[in-house]
Amino acid sequence: MSDTPELVAALAAIVGEEHVTTSLSELDRHGHDESAHETVLPDAVVFPATTEQVAGVVRVCNQRRVPMIPFGVGSSLEGNVTPLHGGVSIDLTRMNRIIAVRPEDLDATIEAGVTRRQLEARLREDGVFFSVDPGADATLGGMAATGASGTTAVRYGTMRENVLSLTVVTADGEIMRTRSRARKSSAGYDLTHLLIGSEGTLGVITELTVKLHPLPEATASAVVNFPTVRDAVEAATETIQMGLPVARIELLDEVTMHAVVLRSQLPMAERPTLFIDLHGSAASVQEHAAALGEVVAAHGAEGYEWTTDPTEAKRLWSARHQVYEATIALRPGCRGMPTDVCVPVSRLAECIEESRADLDRSGVFAPIVGHVGDGNFHLTIVVDPTSAEEVEAAEALHDRLVQRAIAMEGTCTGEHGVGSGKVRYLPIEHDAETMAMMRRIKDAMDPLGLMNPGKVLGPAVP
Amino acid sequence: MSDTPELVAALAAIVGEEHVTTSLSELDRHGHDESAHETVLPDAVVFPATTEQVAGVVRVCNQRRVPMIPFGVGSSLEGNVTPLHGGVSIDLTRMNRIIAVRPEDLDATIEAGVTRRQLEARLREDGVFFSVDPGADATLGGMAATGASGTTAVRYGTMRENVLSLTVVTADGEIMRTRSRARKSSAGYDLTHLLIGSEGTLGVITELTVKLHPLPEATASAVVNFPTVRDAVEAATETIQMGLPVARIELLDEVTMHAVVLRSQLPMAERPTLFIDLHGSAASVQEHAAALGEVVAAHGAEGYEWTTDPTEAKRLWSARHQVYEATIALRPGCRGMPTDVCVPVSRLAECIEESRADLDRSGVFAPIVGHVGDGNFHLTIVVDPTSAEEVEAAEALHDRLVQRAIAMEGTCTGEHGVGSGKVRYLPIEHDAETMAMMRRIKDAMDPLGLMNPGKVLGPAVP
Repeated sequence: MSDTPELVAALAAIVGEEHVTTSLSELDRHGHDESAHETVLPDAVVFPATTEQVAGVVRVCNQRRVPMIPFGVGSSLEGNVTPLHGGVSIDLTRMNRIIAVRPEDLDATIEAGVTRRQLEARLREDGVFFSVDPGADATLGGMAATGASGTTAVRYGTMRENVLSLTVVTADGEIMRTRSRARKSSAGYDLTHLLIGSEGTLGVITELTVKLHPLPEATASAVVNFPTVRDAVEAATETIQMGLPVARIELLDEVTMHAVVLRSQLPMAERPTLFIDLHGSAASVQEHAAALGEVVAAHGAEGYEWTTDPTEAKRLWSARHQVYEATIALRPGCRGMPTDVCVPVSRLAECIEESRADLDRSGVFAPIVGHVGDGNFHLTIVVDPTSAEEVEAAEALHDRLVQRAIAMEGTCTGEHGVGSGKVRYLPIEHDAETMAMMRRIKDAMDPLGLMNPGKVLGPAVP
Repeated sequence: MSDTPELVAALAAIVGEEHVTTSLSELDRHGHDESAHETVLPDAVVFPATTEQVAGVVRVCNQRRVPMIPFGVGSSLEGNVTPLHGGVSIDLTRMNRIIAVRPEDLDATIEAGVTRRQLEARLREDGVFFSVDPGADATLGGMAATGASGTTAVRYGTMRENVLSLTVVTADGEIMRTRSRARKSSAGYDLTHLLIGSEGTLGVITELTVKLHPLPEATASAVVNFPTVRDAVEAATETIQMGLPVARIELLDEVTMHAVVLRSQLPMAERPTLFIDLHGSAASVQEHAAALGEVVAAHGAEGYEWTTDPTEAKRLWSARHQVYEATIALRPGCRGMPTDVCVPVSRLAECIEESRADLDRSGVFAPIVGHVGDGNFHLTIVVDPTSAEEVEAAEALHDRLVQRAIAMEGTCTGEHGVGSGKVRYLPIEHDAETMAMMRRIKDAMDPLGLMNPGKVLGPAVP
């Protein structure tokens, strides 16, 4: 962009010279996320420190008709933060203040650049926790923008259920707060949920008030092997249908277990496995463990043990948390192309089984992990980005997977968002009227189309 | 309206002659809700039987620039369904089919005119239940449109947490489904939540897919008296802060208890009282009852008992459910003007105490009930609508209450919605930018301003 120096000067006037950069390494870091999606460089990266500075940055970009892309730590998986049309990457990581923690109200107010682990560390002293855990040490702002969830959603919900209020810079550089801090409100339209999952296309989230939960009195964790993936999925489905309040119930297929064992060196069997967590009082955890024991035994599980030792549990779960990196490491030089369908739980076993058969036929390498309590699972397709043939086969597999999930009344994305990677699936999932309504809302909230252009709905109709 | 016969003929062409009426009794019934807000008659009432018929009705109204007001059973409390500018009241009660109940997915799909009790009766055979219980036997469509909640929200959430997907007729008569039936989805903007609480101003909800819960294995209920309202509130607040998973925890002050005892003839003390419900396994209910026992004892409770007999529990809760009618019956000929503020729980005791003192000074008659686990409470102001002086004093009290709640980071409405009754409070609660964004969304989704005009945001800026 020829007028970049002028743009940089205008941004510097807002945030200070040292907080705007056009260095190639920073442009590159802000030009992609953790997925295999292509890198496109922004023209500049700006690091505002306050909501007011973000508003100033947005006004500068607005005046110059420059695209704006909010950026956290770049841990998204669908190219959600890639500046497809250049412009300014608004890096929010300097906005990392924990403004207030209120254990008495079970809520906290934080800036958008606070990361999950940073918040977790701060909360521990108060005996409370924030439940949403997508694995990556993402920023809370990014998690809200993506509608993230992860392993604990089955019990505590996704970001949608755990955000009370947002402070947002609108596309024209105004600052708005979506709602009060009250637990319940029917005071006007639900702007909070409209912004959650909007991926920076409707405004920039700069501050969040999130719900907290009291630390459970007792926990128990188990790593349970099954003869087949279907057995594991059916055990998980039955657990949910019975209303057993598991805190997490995660599927890893045998290939994923192989990757995890390689990386973690933990002595675990390389078989289809459920990682299960229970939270509650000592008595209820014991009771639920017994009930779960019957369920998993009926599906062929054997030889597992519950641990109530937090250190041991953390070690087990750290293995689960390394799945993405561990899986990609199986094919050095390759990149991840994670899929993210979610179906009603009654269709889950069938959907996974059909997908597995499809996978085997296609020759694509893609271990399966799943937040099976919610009906959400990922094929982590590992592709050699230099092989056009592999990429094409992977994309065809993904297309078939999405078609299959939608035919089962599911969705193309349970938690990763649309980014640019799933733009083509949205009109398959939603009817034309729904798409038109989303477009109308986008046009109303971002009339110039400068907020993370090309994402979620894709290019505006010309 | 002079062209009513032509309008009626056009509507009859869509729904059949026998399903359009201009009879005075029906116009009157659709001219108000259960509150003291003024009655304004629609020009006609139409009773569509399908989503397609609703779409046809909307197109007829659109062409003629006639306002449209969706109507369930009229149990709202803020004039939400009153046709302030005349037009067509769209009565959805013929759309009362339960389309599918899927215990295996813990969800159900129903038409908007299905009532809460109708659904409850159908679900019982499957061992599941729908949790949201606002007291009135409202339609599910109305409950979604209002963002309703009630006694069980503290455990199971409000309508916002219990609706998966909506079918909606848009302002221009198109039919859209907001999302799939998957438990989790990040596939585009959250139209579901935008419609929940929109009170018919953004579209007509015609079908819902809602979440269900397995019936709890065991329940226990108690009616616990306290020396003062403050003691009761503090006991409730402490219960929440400890994370004790009560299914309901309801405050009734001594005046409300007097009204309830009069009406129900149950032998209950006329003192500040908490109605409490526990749901869970037999062991966990016992455990939680013991923990709760310690909390309430520390706040001066005595002489209560837990009942695990469902019939007895139902009798107790039926007393709670009659509160609104029982309270109004204390002053024959008067009408209810319920308030609905909600504050963070740490401010609840203070907010109720100050409101009580204000109430005593003002001479207004207004017993207090509260969904205290959520920080939500109602003064049910009972006014003689023929006394201008009383109405004025009541409105002044309400204004001060709302200001107080907002100053404590709360909201003017926890669950009743804005209707016309709280339009004036919205710009006090939300900043100008938030109001402007809500207006933009309204204008984008209802460009002609025909959907329940005058509600939520009030009149469009001229």
